[in-house]
Amino acid sequence: MSSQPPHPALLIPGPIEFDDAVLQSMSHHSESHVGQPFVNVFGDVLAQLRKLFQTSDPASQPFVLSGSGTLGWDQVAANLGEPGDEALVLHTGYFADSFADCLETYGVKATQLKAPIGDRPQLDEVEKALKEKKYKILTVTHVDTSTGVLSELKALSELVHRVSPDTLVVVDGVCSVGCEEIKFDEWKLDVVLTASQKAIGCPAGLSILMASGRAIEVYKTRKTRPTSYFGSWNNWLPIMQNYEAKKASYFATPSPQLIRALHTSLTQILSRPLEQRFADHRNMSQKIKKAIGDLGLKQLSSKPENQANGMTAIYLPEGITPPDVLPSLTKKGIIFAGGLHKQIAAKYIRFGHMGVSVTDPNRTDIDKAIAALKESLAEVGYKA
Amino acid sequence: MSSQPPHPALLIPGPIEFDDAVLQSMSHHSESHVGQPFVNVFGDVLAQLRKLFQTSDPASQPFVLSGSGTLGWDQVAANLGEPGDEALVLHTGYFADSFADCLETYGVKATQLKAPIGDRPQLDEVEKALKEKKYKILTVTHVDTSTGVLSELKALSELVHRVSPDTLVVVDGVCSVGCEEIKFDEWKLDVVLTASQKAIGCPAGLSILMASGRAIEVYKTRKTRPTSYFGSWNNWLPIMQNYEAKKASYFATPSPQLIRALHTSLTQILSRPLEQRFADHRNMSQKIKKAIGDLGLKQLSSKPENQANGMTAIYLPEGITPPDVLPSLTKKGIIFAGGLHKQIAAKYIRFGHMGVSVTDPNRTDIDKAIAALKESLAEVGYKA
Repeated sequence: MSSQPPHPALLIPGPIEFDDAVLQSMSHHSESHVGQPFVNVFGDVLAQLRKLFQTSDPASQPFVLSGSGTLGWDQVAANLGEPGDEALVLHTGYFADSFADCLETYGVKATQLKAPIGDRPQLDEVEKALKEKKYKILTVTHVDTSTGVLSELKALSELVHRVSPDTLVVVDGVCSVGCEEIKFDEWKLDVVLTASQKAIGCPAGLSILMASGRAIEVYKTRKTRPTSYFGSWNNWLPIMQNYEAKKASYFATPSPQLIRALHTSLTQILSRPLEQRFADHRNMSQKIKKAIGDLGLKQLSSKPENQANGMTAIYLPEGITPPDVLPSLTKKGIIFAGGLHKQIAAKYIRFGHMGVSVTDPNRTDIDKAIAALKESLAEVGYKA
Repeated sequence: MSSQPPHPALLIPGPIEFDDAVLQSMSHHSESHVGQPFVNVFGDVLAQLRKLFQTSDPASQPFVLSGSGTLGWDQVAANLGEPGDEALVLHTGYFADSFADCLETYGVKATQLKAPIGDRPQLDEVEKALKEKKYKILTVTHVDTSTGVLSELKALSELVHRVSPDTLVVVDGVCSVGCEEIKFDEWKLDVVLTASQKAIGCPAGLSILMASGRAIEVYKTRKTRPTSYFGSWNNWLPIMQNYEAKKASYFATPSPQLIRALHTSLTQILSRPLEQRFADHRNMSQKIKKAIGDLGLKQLSSKPENQANGMTAIYLPEGITPPDVLPSLTKKGIIFAGGLHKQIAAKYIRFGHMGVSVTDPNRTDIDKAIAALKESLAEVGYKA
């Protein structure tokens, strides 16, 4: 039985429901951020992240900073970008606009390649764009939390390496790391950034990032100083290397409780083959998408190959808006999220299905959610 | 009885020991960052911070961001500084060097006014410096965690307002907010920044900052865009205002668990008169400093008016270094910190006395620590 009090199942695209043991780690007694017990745990976390991202290249470098996923964008812009550099931002929703805004803040020129809502830029369009201008950085949102659109990383990275081999491939994996397959080395990715509170299954408050040896080299050979202090790899690189070597080190105080919780969560994730975890998410996603279709509802992402496996963005029936169904769902013990894509926010809702709600066979969150959605729609007069 | 397992008392200058209820809030079940229950709690926290900082001016603006205390420096540098601006940095230890480095990262020219180790710049020296050049920002470390030197804010701020009235008075209160008296309005401070894990008594992971109406005006009338994204008030100001008005709002995902724990901690702090809390810390500090003197030991900060009330930096006897005593202290259930000021790190240790270890009458941490220090020194042959 869960040690958590009864509460509505949080099925938004992050934060997600957390395992009891992870939440218990959050209340770990106070300990020194430079004491050996904590240093050992932080070191283990960095090694675990290498496994989660499927990188065995010793030149790859994990970073875990106090902050939100957004801080990963600042790390990319401030450490890999220099004023005047060019970035190609592949747009599949709200988060590309924001990442572009972040890049521009640091003086990097961001060119967005947009797709219609629910779709993603096609490879031939990306190829054309890469041939028109030399880009230092290409960014792609693996899963855009505003639309549920999944990007295809493997073929995209192959294309970039073929057409524009010096361009760094930067992946926003905030809504994908831990539930979508990512092979960092094999796919030759340069940065994958994420946050703790989605498919990794640890409460919010950590910016998590993996950089390739090539990205670290670009950072090391930059001409100007990184234009952030808190997010600067000048400050954090030696700290992360020391922690991983189990040596105490200090730049800014990390959060021992969050790192302990992340350790618990990563230990659980890595106790099973990753392939199985990704398959669980794919299978549950298929089941949900079929149920949504059976209800006569459409997804924002209309092509199967564009559909995320950890969330579903669902168009409401004509004339029904999120406030018509979300409070009724909450009364039934289910929390979904409203729309986030500005142009269509009032037309859709978002259903997150990541982590323990998917992988823990004792939980019935998903089945309850589908039933509750059906009932709530019926209450406002909708018939499938 | 405490719900925490037995563990050594953490008496470093942060993180500190935490109250059971605060740690229990850290394991709060998952909730939406835009759901009303959490929004209400975040709103309450912002209102509580106004009380803690003793500001009733509605133009004052609190900020709570995921990050460490260091992120407060970035907020100051990126939102109040513009490239080419001048800052006068009062130096009382390690943290002034770092704050200066942060300001320079954002293109602000930092001039340091240094004092001998254990002392602070004198008011006549500050006056002279302010008359020599026009500074947009003056920064002062209220308590430098590396030296235990306390700065005098009231007279300093009066001086700045008299001699250089346009200069913003920025206080690094990381090791002071919650244990040293701060009257934000009455002393006409412009920024006080801090972190959660010291005298506020909430686990690490939050950057907490109060800005005056005047500081917000300087930010609003800046000519260039803030040069940070994650730390930009362009992004956070509307969010903080919405949260305080109990309206859901989104820029980047906050940490509901940390905000819940902060709420618990601030509720405890504000349940008693602040004056009493500060007096408790002063009285305990006096007791500790007397015991240190009785042991024949000297403090880094030799003048009583320079001595912090939440920590004590203690010179070890000649020939004894931190590794000679810290492990032995840990065996006795007491964790102190080593030296941090680079020039003298091997010569001293630091004893933190903030929060529940001071205010909870059921705890005996401090008495045990003094006894353990005496024993550990005796073990290596030192006699008072």
